[in-house]
Amino acid sequence: MSEKIKGIAASSGIAIGKAFILKDPELKIEIKKITDTKQEIGRFQSAVDQSKVELEAIKVKADAELGKDKAEIFAAHLLVLSDPELIGAVTQKIENEQICAEAAMDDVSSMYISMFENMDNEYMKERAADIRDVSKRVISHLLGVQFSNPASITEEVVIVAHDLTPSDTAQLNKQFVKGFVTDIGGRTSHSAIMSRSMEIPAVVGTKAVTEKAESGMQIIIDGLSGEIILNPSVEEISAYQQKQANYEEKKEEWKKLVNEKTMTKDNQHVELAANIGNPDDIDGVLNNGGEGVGLYRTEFLYMGRDNFPTEDEQFEAYKKVLEKMEGKPVVIRTLDIGGDKELPYLDLPKELNPFLGFRAIRLCLERQDIFRTQLRALLRASAYGNLKIMFPMIATLDEFRQAKSILNEEKEQLVGQGVGVSDQIEVGMMVEIPSTAVMADRFAKEVDFFSIGTNDLIQYTMAADRMNQHVSYLYQPYNPAILRLVNMVIQAAHKEGKWVGMCGEMAGDEIAIPILLGLGLDEFSMSATSILPARSQIAKLSKEELAGHIDEILAMDTVDEVIGFVRGLTPKTCG
Amino acid sequence: MSEKIKGIAASSGIAIGKAFILKDPELKIEIKKITDTKQEIGRFQSAVDQSKVELEAIKVKADAELGKDKAEIFAAHLLVLSDPELIGAVTQKIENEQICAEAAMDDVSSMYISMFENMDNEYMKERAADIRDVSKRVISHLLGVQFSNPASITEEVVIVAHDLTPSDTAQLNKQFVKGFVTDIGGRTSHSAIMSRSMEIPAVVGTKAVTEKAESGMQIIIDGLSGEIILNPSVEEISAYQQKQANYEEKKEEWKKLVNEKTMTKDNQHVELAANIGNPDDIDGVLNNGGEGVGLYRTEFLYMGRDNFPTEDEQFEAYKKVLEKMEGKPVVIRTLDIGGDKELPYLDLPKELNPFLGFRAIRLCLERQDIFRTQLRALLRASAYGNLKIMFPMIATLDEFRQAKSILNEEKEQLVGQGVGVSDQIEVGMMVEIPSTAVMADRFAKEVDFFSIGTNDLIQYTMAADRMNQHVSYLYQPYNPAILRLVNMVIQAAHKEGKWVGMCGEMAGDEIAIPILLGLGLDEFSMSATSILPARSQIAKLSKEELAGHIDEILAMDTVDEVIGFVRGLTPKTCG
Repeated sequence: MSEKIKGIAASSGIAIGKAFILKDPELKIEIKKITDTKQEIGRFQSAVDQSKVELEAIKVKADAELGKDKAEIFAAHLLVLSDPELIGAVTQKIENEQICAEAAMDDVSSMYISMFENMDNEYMKERAADIRDVSKRVISHLLGVQFSNPASITEEVVIVAHDLTPSDTAQLNKQFVKGFVTDIGGRTSHSAIMSRSMEIPAVVGTKAVTEKAESGMQIIIDGLSGEIILNPSVEEISAYQQKQANYEEKKEEWKKLVNEKTMTKDNQHVELAANIGNPDDIDGVLNNGGEGVGLYRTEFLYMGRDNFPTEDEQFEAYKKVLEKMEGKPVVIRTLDIGGDKELPYLDLPKELNPFLGFRAIRLCLERQDIFRTQLRALLRASAYGNLKIMFPMIATLDEFRQAKSILNEEKEQLVGQGVGVSDQIEVGMMVEIPSTAVMADRFAKEVDFFSIGTNDLIQYTMAADRMNQHVSYLYQPYNPAILRLVNMVIQAAHKEGKWVGMCGEMAGDEIAIPILLGLGLDEFSMSATSILPARSQIAKLSKEELAGHIDEILAMDTVDEVIGFVRGLTPKTCG
Repeated sequence: MSEKIKGIAASSGIAIGKAFILKDPELKIEIKKITDTKQEIGRFQSAVDQSKVELEAIKVKADAELGKDKAEIFAAHLLVLSDPELIGAVTQKIENEQICAEAAMDDVSSMYISMFENMDNEYMKERAADIRDVSKRVISHLLGVQFSNPASITEEVVIVAHDLTPSDTAQLNKQFVKGFVTDIGGRTSHSAIMSRSMEIPAVVGTKAVTEKAESGMQIIIDGLSGEIILNPSVEEISAYQQKQANYEEKKEEWKKLVNEKTMTKDNQHVELAANIGNPDDIDGVLNNGGEGVGLYRTEFLYMGRDNFPTEDEQFEAYKKVLEKMEGKPVVIRTLDIGGDKELPYLDLPKELNPFLGFRAIRLCLERQDIFRTQLRALLRASAYGNLKIMFPMIATLDEFRQAKSILNEEKEQLVGQGVGVSDQIEVGMMVEIPSTAVMADRFAKEVDFFSIGTNDLIQYTMAADRMNQHVSYLYQPYNPAILRLVNMVIQAAHKEGKWVGMCGEMAGDEIAIPILLGLGLDEFSMSATSILPARSQIAKLSKEELAGHIDEILAMDTVDEVIGFVRGLTPKTCG
């Protein structure tokens, strides 16, 4: 009998194959008393060193096959193993309590894990996952147990696991692994993000797939709908083979659009750009037909290190992106750090509400040393391409004016020193705080462009932290309140002849795209892999026709009405 | 030579008099080893008991002279002394470390204080102040040192102190204490709030007044401007006596307005109502000429206790308020708990961003047991006056509809049981989340009234936690973005024939009042002591004239422009 299980679609595509249950070895940790603490600490240190060597190797593999920002995860793991606080706590425990290294490691890491897990914050929870992953690896070495190794898989399988750790995912061999399904996780968990960049179909958060699936059992993974089928019938297999073929066909169709401009059915051009975090992401942007970079999140340059990147380091990164994009527009956002995004070397106060706190431009206007270094690097890089500079978290005109005047000061100084600086740099801002949407008509007179950051704009407009499961139901991109604010911004900008982009998740969303097109959005910036499906969808939509429905949509009461209306309007072009 | 020091105006009025430096006795705590731990714990327990007796007495005095919510502070102190965790930690320390009670108490309370102080949250910092206050009292008893007693003052003085603890403030004898000035504190610190309700001029946050003032020195406190003068010259004294006389004259003028309606110069009526937290606050409302209650914060009913108030307890409280107000409108807000406002008996998850979290109506729609109990109490009380029910933190129409339908269900049930329920109850909502202001035209069709909660609305619209000192500069009530949202709400409501109130601090603000009048606000709800000055100010303003300036104000760029414009428009009527 076949059995259907519903999970969360994490990576598009259909996989049909034999289940491979990936289980961690059971680590039986006994608290053994030891006498020679010095020797035990040595044993611990050597397990740590072995783990480091392994992680370095995985990191190199990940860097080559998955890109630099995926490799960062292992840099994070290596950092855990170099954290003097954690390592120190373990050695101290061995010394004071005279217990074996595995028990001490288990105890210390459990404490850290439960501390991070209780933070009710996705980012911190990921830190807990990192520590769990690293701790298992070290303890496996201490116990002499073989740590699970998905790299050893040599036949075509579908991986079934409670959760895939970042190191598991990085070791998956794409040649043999057709897809994967897990008990836990959501669309933004590490494993989900990796599955998308590896383009392996994946369903996560099924709750109990490991309890129901058995090794060798046939399994279908539908990464489009989030459904999986255990022991499918012949009819089900054949239906899904058809769905798979259709999807592959669609993918082929999308591939043909790589070198095309994005045009609507009524022959209007809109720009589809990509959000990136690292210069290495550019290959993915170009392979997916990105017409530009709509958001380069520079904070990744500052993360996973011990001190601020120098002006030259930054210059090299920005120059690389601009050169690779060969004159296509590149919007670089200045540092958005602070709040929940911490830097170990920047001592910031703990805040009660970090999302309403001291971050991004607020921090940069206060810590001008950090800000000016970045601006100089950007200005110097501007000579190598089509740079647009964007300030994050602007709330008032005063802030924008201050940021722009600092930029101008640095520009004048560089030009005075004979440094080549482009005189075509556009200077814009994120619209992610409600006050700026409401005041867009005033801002529009002073900026060169807006980019609407819907992730934050929705959070503030609805007063709901989307990471907080109790109120995530209020994170409503299609709420008419959000659409009205977006409309205000676009109307105000166009009146002054300025362009408007969007760089939140909403810009690549199938339901949102027809509305945004109707509202007149000029640039849609999304994850690179969403660009071709979006281009294909837009080719079937008439901008003029959609614009004719906007008044009706903006007069709706609820998000359900909006979704129903859009579904009725447009053919389902994806999935 | 006279010396001027600038502080924060905490309570209006001028005081001129001799300085009385209020200093805590120096508590020299030595860590003495003891042997009889049982006896030492007895000594500790007896100091705790003595402190409790004192605090009970102060609480009674505060209740009689300052009102119930001020007395709550001492209930909080008594709670500290009954906290088994704190008391237990001290006795355990005495036992385990065999140290004297004063050292153990000092150690434990210091730990709690530093924990709360590091929370960067005003509310938690106040908890730290409570523990410091209580700890000092207990240690004084243990050391046999006389705890400072402002009640012993028997000549006219101006109190100078580093900080006034709540117990100090409550013991001040209004007959002799003409005013006070402190080194630390802000407009919302306990001592500042108390000084306003005692109507004693006060300046706080001078940073160093205790270093510069000497006992017996002449001192002028200007609670209007926040300035103080040490050793004033004869001319300065005479100038301030004149200012004092003017202020007293103005106060006399205000008193004449107690029984007047609030009318503008062009003969338009607006309603001036009060915000209250307890039924006992009604006396202050009526003494200050309040035309209604614009906001009854029911959460105080739920605080400082071990379990939820019963339906009957709530009914009695609501009935008392409605009866005392004798048919004047009373807007009661349903429970706004959660987020940073915790109840010890309601186990809520810790949140990363409590201001964007699970609170108020979000919590009530989930925990309908709590919500329905309150609604039944409100419905039953409605028979005794002019009740209006208001839901807090509404973000979507779905939420309002759901809350209203639960209310209707309870109403039908009560009516079915033959319970008397008014059929005139208006049902409205707070506008404190940007989405509701943007969607006000849709909400206006379904509500009976709006009340704009500016404190939160400003926080969300500017994405700035006003309690966070690093971003408090963005808490801008006069930012044109805020004024535009207020305008949207008023326009939308009036179009549907509904009324709009405001119950944030902005409603009683001298700069905001002319703008709000021009925008057409119908009801201004503020702290009771602000009502008469506001009535006097409004009597000098022409609503029609102000309405004529609104377009100009809404087209401004920055808060400074708005303030400058309003200052130029209206005569300074206060201060």
